[in-house]
Amino acid sequence: MKPFMDKNFMLNTRSAERLFHEYAANMPIIDYHNHLPPAEIAQNITFENITQVWLKGDHYKWRAMRANGIDENFITGNASDYEKFEKWAATVPYTLRNPLYHWTHLELQRYFGIDELLNPGSARSIYEQTSGLLQTSDYSVKNLLRKRNVSVLCTTDDPIDDLAYHKQITQSNFEIKTLPAWRPDKAMNAENPAIYNQYIDRLSEVAGISITTIDQLLEALQKRHDYFEQTGCKVSDHGIEEFYAEDFTASEINSIFNKVRSGIQLSHTELVKFKSFMLLEFARMDYATNWVQQFHYGVLRNNNSRMFVKIGPDTGFDSIGDFKVAANLAKFLNTLDKENKLAKTILYNINPGDNEMIATMLGNFNEGPVAGKIQFGSGWWFLDQKNGMVAQMNSLSTLGLLSKFVGMLTDSRSFLSFPRHEYFRRIMCNLFGTDMENGEIPNDFELVGGIVQDICYNNAKRYFGF
Amino acid sequence: MKPFMDKNFMLNTRSAERLFHEYAANMPIIDYHNHLPPAEIAQNITFENITQVWLKGDHYKWRAMRANGIDENFITGNASDYEKFEKWAATVPYTLRNPLYHWTHLELQRYFGIDELLNPGSARSIYEQTSGLLQTSDYSVKNLLRKRNVSVLCTTDDPIDDLAYHKQITQSNFEIKTLPAWRPDKAMNAENPAIYNQYIDRLSEVAGISITTIDQLLEALQKRHDYFEQTGCKVSDHGIEEFYAEDFTASEINSIFNKVRSGIQLSHTELVKFKSFMLLEFARMDYATNWVQQFHYGVLRNNNSRMFVKIGPDTGFDSIGDFKVAANLAKFLNTLDKENKLAKTILYNINPGDNEMIATMLGNFNEGPVAGKIQFGSGWWFLDQKNGMVAQMNSLSTLGLLSKFVGMLTDSRSFLSFPRHEYFRRIMCNLFGTDMENGEIPNDFELVGGIVQDICYNNAKRYFGF
Amino acid sequence: MKPFMDKNFMLNTRSAERLFHEYAANMPIIDYHNHLPPAEIAQNITFENITQVWLKGDHYKWRAMRANGIDENFITGNASDYEKFEKWAATVPYTLRNPLYHWTHLELQRYFGIDELLNPGSARSIYEQTSGLLQTSDYSVKNLLRKRNVSVLCTTDDPIDDLAYHKQITQSNFEIKTLPAWRPDKAMNAENPAIYNQYIDRLSEVAGISITTIDQLLEALQKRHDYFEQTGCKVSDHGIEEFYAEDFTASEINSIFNKVRSGIQLSHTELVKFKSFMLLEFARMDYATNWVQQFHYGVLRNNNSRMFVKIGPDTGFDSIGDFKVAANLAKFLNTLDKENKLAKTILYNINPGDNEMIATMLGNFNEGPVAGKIQFGSGWWFLDQKNGMVAQMNSLSTLGLLSKFVGMLTDSRSFLSFPRHEYFRRIMCNLFGTDMENGEIPNDFELVGGIVQDICYNNAKRYFGF
Repeated sequence: MKPFMDKNFMLNTRSAERLFHEYAANMPIIDYHNHLPPAEIAQNITFENITQVWLKGDHYKWRAMRANGIDENFITGNASDYEKFEKWAATVPYTLRNPLYHWTHLELQRYFGIDELLNPGSARSIYEQTSGLLQTSDYSVKNLLRKRNVSVLCTTDDPIDDLAYHKQITQSNFEIKTLPAWRPDKAMNAENPAIYNQYIDRLSEVAGISITTIDQLLEALQKRHDYFEQTGCKVSDHGIEEFYAEDFTASEINSIFNKVRSGIQLSHTELVKFKSFMLLEFARMDYATNWVQQFHYGVLRNNNSRMFVKIGPDTGFDSIGDFKVAANLAKFLNTLDKENKLAKTILYNINPGDNEMIATMLGNFNEGPVAGKIQFGSGWWFLDQKNGMVAQMNSLSTLGLLSKFVGMLTDSRSFLSFPRHEYFRRIMCNLFGTDMENGEIPNDFELVGGIVQDICYNNAKRYFGF
Repeated sequence: MKPFMDKNFMLNTRSAERLFHEYAANMPIIDYHNHLPPAEIAQNITFENITQVWLKGDHYKWRAMRANGIDENFITGNASDYEKFEKWAATVPYTLRNPLYHWTHLELQRYFGIDELLNPGSARSIYEQTSGLLQTSDYSVKNLLRKRNVSVLCTTDDPIDDLAYHKQITQSNFEIKTLPAWRPDKAMNAENPAIYNQYIDRLSEVAGISITTIDQLLEALQKRHDYFEQTGCKVSDHGIEEFYAEDFTASEINSIFNKVRSGIQLSHTELVKFKSFMLLEFARMDYATNWVQQFHYGVLRNNNSRMFVKIGPDTGFDSIGDFKVAANLAKFLNTLDKENKLAKTILYNINPGDNEMIATMLGNFNEGPVAGKIQFGSGWWFLDQKNGMVAQMNSLSTLGLLSKFVGMLTDSRSFLSFPRHEYFRRIMCNLFGTDMENGEIPNDFELVGGIVQDICYNNAKRYFGF
Repeated sequence: MKPFMDKNFMLNTRSAERLFHEYAANMPIIDYHNHLPPAEIAQNITFENITQVWLKGDHYKWRAMRANGIDENFITGNASDYEKFEKWAATVPYTLRNPLYHWTHLELQRYFGIDELLNPGSARSIYEQTSGLLQTSDYSVKNLLRKRNVSVLCTTDDPIDDLAYHKQITQSNFEIKTLPAWRPDKAMNAENPAIYNQYIDRLSEVAGISITTIDQLLEALQKRHDYFEQTGCKVSDHGIEEFYAEDFTASEINSIFNKVRSGIQLSHTELVKFKSFMLLEFARMDYATNWVQQFHYGVLRNNNSRMFVKIGPDTGFDSIGDFKVAANLAKFLNTLDKENKLAKTILYNINPGDNEMIATMLGNFNEGPVAGKIQFGSGWWFLDQKNGMVAQMNSLSTLGLLSKFVGMLTDSRSFLSFPRHEYFRRIMCNLFGTDMENGEIPNDFELVGGIVQDICYNNAKRYFGF
């Protein structure tokens, strides 16, 4: 009987233990995709209490509380910070086998040195102990990042963002490289003409280019892309339901853009053609600057209209879709490859039923000299847990080269999420260690430990060119 | 080497053993969905022989026999009961690794105290021994249910059913609560106007309402729903290929209903609109009475026309479909949620590729005060086996709260199927026990054992309100 | 810690070891589907070096090299045979956890007695040692087949093939039965009228039948089918994206065929109707001769146009598709079953998400007296690895009868691939052995070992009627 979450947590063999402790544990972290607010880093804020950093904005926890029958008032409502924490503490024991149970206790251990389990009995003392620490400067967000040995992080930013906070962070000589990432979804999501035009008008302003034609739109975006490049950006990111790969003509795109700029609703076909066009244009920009392009696809968003009206998007009402994307994805990548403009690419699926399709799609477009040019992104969102990660790594292993994987990222909004890198590394070391013990891979720590370190850090360092 | 099917069957660690024997084993059974014939309970029948209870109507066994190359005459044909049993006995050894192998021997052990394996060598003696016992009153169907500690069971009944047998069972003071469940599929399956109208005419008669308009149809159904409610019904059940969520107008539905009532074949679009309408109406009725609504979706039925003509439906010619349902399912649930009429809901998928989609769909509509308001149904039909159950519980664990799961049901036509609850409990305890041994959950039997008991019994008791 | 790839490789329990060594290891091999060139067998060629037999044509290895960032010149380009081998040797250590790592070292052990691991340090000596052996007559292709105890093999042949090499092999009294297999894809793939008509003209010539009508096409194909039957053919094979099961009329097919014969491009609908028609006709021919028909479906082919132009098809640019096929597959099989013309059938899926759908589809059309009439084909192409095989065998076990499975085939273009049968057998024995140790199946070696031997050899021998 192994104790819960001791130093060999998730490590079920001696080989796994050795791989983790001797090879993985001390590698620095490159967190190449997350949603941390640059303002809070620039201002190096501290938090008043654990509710502020844990429960404000964490829709994973909100969903668990709703599933536990907690009233919304204690989740996103007017209850006090302590009341919310208390309801969360009452929910935690019922999250057994959910990653939240592990994340919660890993974060208590790693940041606060608290080994006690969170439950109604320990809620008060844990709230007080953590909140006391959080208010000290030792727990400012910069120090939280330092505690976890982060070396690079990339936030997620809109093309119209002035990146002022990023510049401020750079000027402060913060030793953790903090870079922006280009997320231009709003420039292509023309579902609602009013919202879309408002966005395009803002873009026009920021870029200093009047936008009435599609060429002007591209010119403005290119100008912002150049600006991101100058500010150190190396990666883009796209959140899409499906891969759009409809055929179109230049004149069709012209008139579609004119139509939406005149405030007229596009048909489904027009929208898909427009998105197909924009995705290709974004990809060409990324190729020109040798950025890495990331695609997060397949989520069904905002499924609960009642709650959307009340509390808006990203509040825990999204779920896994069942889109068919293989043919379009292949066509999209091929269109770029044919013109020699396919940038390094990371593909993230949200339905694990796509794992094998994605893992084999990589091979259609891999080519030297970049090792692992097309990457299968680490278990994302709902799949960012043991089973999800194991399935992703097994698919990549058996259908491609796990050894060339750029590894983990947090994708998180919270400064306390960095132990997820450790969690990933433990799970990864356990896979390799189990195979060693079973005689399925050689008992050669230099070889296997080297690959482990590549996945932890070296591959990402080489791939992204930070 | 563990002996086959001893007292620690399916329990691979000491913790799993303890969880099962000390926490799970003695919990009563709530079998909230099955296909037992109420007539046979009311009449408290006994069986002449094991073939009558095992091989008459069990299409799982029929499929295995067909896969084993047995002639149909010994499956559904004119062969004698003993000849059929003999062919089944000859097939059993070849079902190794199929749940039938476990079910067969569990049932022999639990009901008849027979530890011997069934095969051609033991066929004769097992046939005689079991048939001898079955003919005694100790093996009447009521006593069979008592032997397995059943506390509540819900059958599956048509709206036109008079529920006379349920009343008779209640009047007999049978201590096992035996409730009807509302299964109104025939009132919406308008594919064949002749069959449909025949059904609607019967409904009209039973409800005492002439049905020429859609409103009259709803009125008649509501009357029957009221009747079911008065007779103690707490759950509905729907068998559908996909979730229908097409937009429609009241006048469209009116004219579609008039059309089919005139005997005219509906177009595919009309049919889908009609079903979309009916599913919503059924759901609203269930919300009004605080019932739990169940949806079993995704089966491809009656695939073998030659055999359908010969022996009809539910004879082993159905299989797992590959329908895409996420967007429609979300739309259907959202339509009800928006009007605050979303009843407690259980979703059962038949393609395990939908597990993660379903497990995350729950979270879009969960809300207090009911814990686990939207449930991911236990491994169903083809998935009612170790791998299917483990996959369902792992998806629910990592993407939701396993702790709030209402657990197992037999969905069975056989009075000897109740050891499947034990089978499920062993598998569930093995999951928790393995995690305890590995240090992935705390070594706290009070906590984990409590959750185990909730999943066995307490959650269902609370959720259904029996 | 088990040593890497020792005699108990992949066998993790004593029971698994015993099942493999005492029951599986010595069974002969029936390789009922592969792509070996009959010419090379007839001529009993030898190879100049290991690159010729390993790297010329093996797109699995090519994909791994591309993922490793190797320049195409060292893969399919002008680099020397040794240079190519050196780059492969440099890639091998990075294929850890990919089946290539196992296959590579199994083949070095079994054919060349080399236990050393392949890597840059051992590349030179392994190249020289293996090439030296390959040039001896002891390593002629017939002797390579003899070394692995092959008893029957079926190649893959076009209807227009004269099967001269097969006759030559038979006349040489080669003790390994070498049979042709009928692969008529080109007779139905009418996407490109020019290519199609060229093929039909060749068929017309070979059959000695002028082909201007659809009936003449069928007549010519039947004549070739008869010829294959006379030459000992027992199996057909079809490579399709999806199952085509569109309704059509005779006159539609007539005019579609006339249209394409006139060089006119068919519409998508016409193409699907034509393929639906042809698939049925092929199936009827196979039924008439009691052949086994095989369907390999679901691959997305030739995704990289740039490389297709350069080096053609089957060069590593294919991947797993996400087609929905359940309804059409059921309809196709049912159409044949209704007219009592459904031949023994093997279904191979490439997306493991279809495993459960396929495993349950079998049951719709199984019937005596053939045991396992409809078969779930062994893990194919990308799925021909431990996880793929385990998933296939688990699906077949829980949803059908693993005991009636006809087992493994190489599907390979290489004479060194036959250790994959051993690999499969080890994995299969490990499944049964683990279940025995866990008490999930009886500790009865006669029973379980007998089933193991059936899956290795006896089932295929009985099923195919070689």
